[in-house]
Amino acid sequence: MPSVWFELLGTCPHTGARRGRLHTPHGTVETPFFMPVGTQGAVKTVGSEDVEALGFEQVLSNTYHLSLRPGSKTIEKLGGLHRFMSWNGSILTDSGGYQVMSLSDTRTIDDSGVRFKSHLDGSIQFLSPERSIEIQGELGVDISMSLDECPPYPCSRDEAANAMRRTHLWAPRNLAASREGQAVFGIVQGGVHEDLRTESTQFISSLPFAGIAVGGVSVGEPSEMQYPVVAHTAKQLPVDKPRYLMGVGHPKDILHAVACGIDMFDCVLPTRMARHHALYTLDGRVNALGKRWFEHDGPFDEQSVFPQTERYSAAYIRHLFKAGEPLGARLATLHNLAFYARLLREIREAILDGTWPDLIARYERA
Amino acid sequence: MPSVWFELLGTCPHTGARRGRLHTPHGTVETPFFMPVGTQGAVKTVGSEDVEALGFEQVLSNTYHLSLRPGSKTIEKLGGLHRFMSWNGSILTDSGGYQVMSLSDTRTIDDSGVRFKSHLDGSIQFLSPERSIEIQGELGVDISMSLDECPPYPCSRDEAANAMRRTHLWAPRNLAASREGQAVFGIVQGGVHEDLRTESTQFISSLPFAGIAVGGVSVGEPSEMQYPVVAHTAKQLPVDKPRYLMGVGHPKDILHAVACGIDMFDCVLPTRMARHHALYTLDGRVNALGKRWFEHDGPFDEQSVFPQTERYSAAYIRHLFKAGEPLGARLATLHNLAFYARLLREIREAILDGTWPDLIARYERA
Repeated sequence: MPSVWFELLGTCPHTGARRGRLHTPHGTVETPFFMPVGTQGAVKTVGSEDVEALGFEQVLSNTYHLSLRPGSKTIEKLGGLHRFMSWNGSILTDSGGYQVMSLSDTRTIDDSGVRFKSHLDGSIQFLSPERSIEIQGELGVDISMSLDECPPYPCSRDEAANAMRRTHLWAPRNLAASREGQAVFGIVQGGVHEDLRTESTQFISSLPFAGIAVGGVSVGEPSEMQYPVVAHTAKQLPVDKPRYLMGVGHPKDILHAVACGIDMFDCVLPTRMARHHALYTLDGRVNALGKRWFEHDGPFDEQSVFPQTERYSAAYIRHLFKAGEPLGARLATLHNLAFYARLLREIREAILDGTWPDLIARYERA
Repeated sequence: MPSVWFELLGTCPHTGARRGRLHTPHGTVETPFFMPVGTQGAVKTVGSEDVEALGFEQVLSNTYHLSLRPGSKTIEKLGGLHRFMSWNGSILTDSGGYQVMSLSDTRTIDDSGVRFKSHLDGSIQFLSPERSIEIQGELGVDISMSLDECPPYPCSRDEAANAMRRTHLWAPRNLAASREGQAVFGIVQGGVHEDLRTESTQFISSLPFAGIAVGGVSVGEPSEMQYPVVAHTAKQLPVDKPRYLMGVGHPKDILHAVACGIDMFDCVLPTRMARHHALYTLDGRVNALGKRWFEHDGPFDEQSVFPQTERYSAAYIRHLFKAGEPLGARLATLHNLAFYARLLREIREAILDGTWPDLIARYERA
């Protein structure tokens, strides 16, 4: 039995949505699911006990950040990333490639890998498929992501094709570098071009990856370009492997992608928006600083009551933000993560209950 | 029966320490106790559920800050400060006088009160004994503090005497302004002068306050000046009322003051130090950024294991501070508050167990 494997429980009678289970060394994760982002080994403002209490079973952390600070060998010496961040659930790490491209000033990429300057101390670092998989092995995570090349949006067809070519060149090198029992996911590229996406999906699906991710989505393109790519790609993915849409997204993006057959999501939106006092509700995202909350004794959304935050009124959370109290960002983060946890829980219920249309109506304005 | 009253349970066979209970409208508080400081209606970085879980039964909040933002009438309309900050325990508010003196640029004080510029919007505000007690009544707290004049340190004997004179002039006006059932504490002034402290203690004790505070201590004077003032004043305080030493302090200051017969404390040290990565341990305060913690898999102090933070290693908390993760300040705050909660719990145990000398030895280096 591989260390990570997918069990399909059923499909939605209305859409292409799938209900399943992802089995990992640190527990079973009910799919579809959302991973809170703990870039530097911590979900911003909240502890692992909070993430657990919110009902999440898997989190995402970042190879790039952790390898620079405190260093993957240090984390390995301290018993691995689970022990380091005191998280007993499952962990997936990205490969570091996306952060190298977006955070490092100076970088040169060729078929051997990426040479870049650390954004922390300016030191020259090198990341290759082999090195990325080695770091993720040292972190001891449940799921390692392949190093790929993710082209920016917009980019020319040639650029998209070249990034795909290098992603395919690197794909088997990622697999070959993995430790015994280290589960590696492959990543489909191809930009917004359906033929490239088809080619990439077929190639990546032909390799023995534990799961397949759709990369290069949610990199700045409008949703009318994102949705066709997701729909086109998802329907060609193998049925027996977990499908992960990287970096997505808004509640409506998740609902669309689940309906296309996607099982896994991660996004900084709920946590980042919370720190900018934007709170998710069934009536859309609201600004906690708004005057309407000044003397509002109830929650931000009467339809949404969350165990971790229901004791605090909108008026209080607004006051905390106005007064610069750090508790404001924490309570808002708990609120937004609870919103996402509930969205995914209701998605899982609706798939098997056959109530997908009701769910779509419920989240219509969210 | 008054709304707030003190029950003496016993005294220490070794010192002047008292073990008692403070009965308040929001529950009984075991004395001696320490109040975490929630300046703006929140203990920085932690929620009311955390303060409760740490074992604290009373918190302190600030009249000055809350009256400027969001306003005491707003809090009253929202059901009072307890409901606003979702704190079910007891609350004491300071009078606002100390903050007016330390935070406002422009102020004029005379026997009618203090006129000052808001540090938020520059508006002209007026605080008098009547207004301070009225605000605290609107907040609906368990214990209101009298408006007094707290002279800075160092100051001349004349300045100390004048501040005391005005404090005495205002004392009965604070009492007269109180609502039905609003418990007001009086404040002893007199600087570092024993004869003034004696005079002030006698005068304040002669009025029907629910409790007596020792003010004007911990305003910058060295501990060799603070300790004699506390000892001299405490021994003249009435036995049947709770005794509160405002703004104190370091663990050793608290141990000294408890031995002098003080029952109540508040201080920003544990929370402020935590945000500056200084963590209390039985071996003294340590810098969480220190290299020694880089790969330290255990807690900061092997002798101190705290429920809220024991799952996280010193190496992890150091990493959070280094990486600028907001969770670092929160975990450090929980650690320091847990240290204070335990110190006070062990103080309460030692008073009646007759093990005070063992306690002093245990906290010798703290």
